[in-house]
Amino acid sequence: MSEQPWTVGEQIAAANAVALARLHAAQPQLVALRYRHEVWPELDPYTLLHAGPPITWERMCGPLRGAVVGALRLEGLARDEREALALVERGRVRFAPNHDYATVGPMTGITSHSMALFEVVDAASGTRAYCTINEGLGKVLRFGANDDSVLARLRWLRDELAPVLAAALGQGGPIDLRALIAQALAMGDELHQRNVAATSLFARLMLPRLLRTGLPAARLAAVADFLTGNDQFFLNLAMAAAKATLDTIRGIDGCSLVSAMCRNGTDFAIRVSGLGDQWFVAPANTPQGLYFPGFSAADANPDMGDSAIVECLGLGGFAMAASPAVVRFVGAGSAARGPAITAEMATITAGRSPHYQIPALDFAGVPTGIDVRKVVATGIAPLINTGIAHRTAGVGQVGAGVVRAPLACFTQALEALAARYLPPAAARR
Amino acid sequence: MSEQPWTVGEQIAAANAVALARLHAAQPQLVALRYRHEVWPELDPYTLLHAGPPITWERMCGPLRGAVVGALRLEGLARDEREALALVERGRVRFAPNHDYATVGPMTGITSHSMALFEVVDAASGTRAYCTINEGLGKVLRFGANDDSVLARLRWLRDELAPVLAAALGQGGPIDLRALIAQALAMGDELHQRNVAATSLFARLMLPRLLRTGLPAARLAAVADFLTGNDQFFLNLAMAAAKATLDTIRGIDGCSLVSAMCRNGTDFAIRVSGLGDQWFVAPANTPQGLYFPGFSAADANPDMGDSAIVECLGLGGFAMAASPAVVRFVGAGSAARGPAITAEMATITAGRSPHYQIPALDFAGVPTGIDVRKVVATGIAPLINTGIAHRTAGVGQVGAGVVRAPLACFTQALEALAARYLPPAAARR
Repeated sequence: MSEQPWTVGEQIAAANAVALARLHAAQPQLVALRYRHEVWPELDPYTLLHAGPPITWERMCGPLRGAVVGALRLEGLARDEREALALVERGRVRFAPNHDYATVGPMTGITSHSMALFEVVDAASGTRAYCTINEGLGKVLRFGANDDSVLARLRWLRDELAPVLAAALGQGGPIDLRALIAQALAMGDELHQRNVAATSLFARLMLPRLLRTGLPAARLAAVADFLTGNDQFFLNLAMAAAKATLDTIRGIDGCSLVSAMCRNGTDFAIRVSGLGDQWFVAPANTPQGLYFPGFSAADANPDMGDSAIVECLGLGGFAMAASPAVVRFVGAGSAARGPAITAEMATITAGRSPHYQIPALDFAGVPTGIDVRKVVATGIAPLINTGIAHRTAGVGQVGAGVVRAPLACFTQALEALAARYLPPAAARR
Repeated sequence: MSEQPWTVGEQIAAANAVALARLHAAQPQLVALRYRHEVWPELDPYTLLHAGPPITWERMCGPLRGAVVGALRLEGLARDEREALALVERGRVRFAPNHDYATVGPMTGITSHSMALFEVVDAASGTRAYCTINEGLGKVLRFGANDDSVLARLRWLRDELAPVLAAALGQGGPIDLRALIAQALAMGDELHQRNVAATSLFARLMLPRLLRTGLPAARLAAVADFLTGNDQFFLNLAMAAAKATLDTIRGIDGCSLVSAMCRNGTDFAIRVSGLGDQWFVAPANTPQGLYFPGFSAADANPDMGDSAIVECLGLGGFAMAASPAVVRFVGAGSAARGPAITAEMATITAGRSPHYQIPALDFAGVPTGIDVRKVVATGIAPLINTGIAHRTAGVGQVGAGVVRAPLACFTQALEALAARYLPPAAARR
């Protein structure tokens, strides 16, 4: 038998099969709460991590700028907005994407020196990922708010909630986020715009652990109030679970699957496994959806946040069939649209998850592993469920909707794949 | 205009409209935990309440007899089975249906003197209903087990869990079970064979209240372990909520809607609103379903328990479309069978609930208010989701499945309605 060299198509298919197997094998588990300065001691307090691809201050949207000001105040580097802006203008502040530090953050996604982070580990590969604690609704840093109430809550999360949750986590082993997410999918969450089941299951899991910490009941009660008062509490855990899973496919030679999608409120960007950590960037689209009373599309900031990592795993928009309530919440039509959207997303993915299943589809797995080749071939861009931020810093959330990833990111990525993997003659054609 | 007397059909339609409005208006709320001897001081310890219609010891099935023995031991009236049987044979023990005392109980449904009961009140009408605390899985009295471990757990429920839960309830106002059930339906529970969402939401609600009781953490932790360790914990609350709702339509003159369905493991019985508290009885069917390893249909006891009260409200089998996981669990086929079963049940009900909605059906309400006329006209018997008990006392649950109410109950009830409401000539025809 003569040795036939693999075709490029076969190489990519084999690489994608490896990637899919890793996505299927991943077992993200919540193991601890740690502070950023412990996880990344090489980052100084003047380094702020943010959602999305790299961006300069000049190109930042309003909410992201507002969150930068808030973070500099939280870290004690500026007493007010004026001092914060002066620091930025002197070039004293360094900005870097969360994704470069194994971290994800919702909306503005600012992760600063003293913030507490959930630490999630993929038990199969040891890959670690981090995410801040969800602040709840209302005026919050992730939507660019930075007044005293916002900073007071952030301090409480850091100084009170995090130590109590860490103590509770210490009362038992790792928390199996894969099982918890699978269970929540069967309970109508899609883990992006709806996390009520996951949050309830998590609170239920934490209840006996909290009671075993030996901490005073008043401290536990305050933490319990916060945990039970925010249906989106689990979102940040879902994001960290997705990040720990997706990072297992970073840099697989020849792989055409998307390893990250993110946005900073100005740009949308993707990374592709076979192309390492290169970003493929295009202007972020503005979500289509439903607005809270008093707001309209004119108020909407372009799409933002690292939360689209959950769509890379097959949750959020990709799991719309699991969540008729979200179809309605984001204004995407009748319940029948859910299965239609999930079916559409299945045309651009490499496979179906064996763990994350949708009962209403007879327990079919969510479509997972976005293939840039399929996106470009079909012209079907990934659909993301998202909150909508006001374009002015500090106003906060003004609605919820769906948004498409810009196709340009995928065409650029496919060209780069072609340039790298096709023979020179074919690449030139 | 001449006065036309209403036809019988018009009278029934008007009565049913009143009944349906009451079912829609009901707001069942959990207000307290109380002991049976406080709620019903007129009942002595020798009176045991049981599931289903009245039955003599001679006709009781194995599990019900086993539970009777266990309850007599729990109450300190007998030291062992021999003494318990001697009491029964001397005629010292009085048996009465739970339903005659505003109470419901799952499976054998034994409710004895010292047991703690959830007290649920319909805020719209003030109607009260009661149900015991769910014992969890394994060897439990409700499946007829009565060994020392069963009694120890029942004592702990009574002496430890109930006071702690009562103290926690006291830290806040009534708990809105209507809202909680509605939310759980949107999370894949049908509130009969699946209560994981409702139980999680309830645990989440109780968490801050437990922490405010001021009780020692070790006591709270034990309660938290129990609450979070049993996915069916909420079933008994769903049953009490359904009972409080259905009792609002007891005795509406001319009404052909079912106010209760229940079974004692030998007989199945229904009550019909316009016919007061009369039972219409037929032999209980044996459930069809899936068996745990090592068991088969030959082990199954006929259908038992007051839990079919949830089907009267439109939950359980009637809400199958909400719960693809239950369709599979009870062996009823593929997920598509869920909507088909719910649609079938809609053909025998008076209306759709405005509160209890099914997201996958574009938020259509569950079919509620079983009309005996429609059951007889269509020949479609109500479908009930149920656990399957071993026919021998103490073995416990051997599977889960679905069972049809016997049509004979409905034909008897329709004949009684005709005898009561049709003119004598018509009734004779």
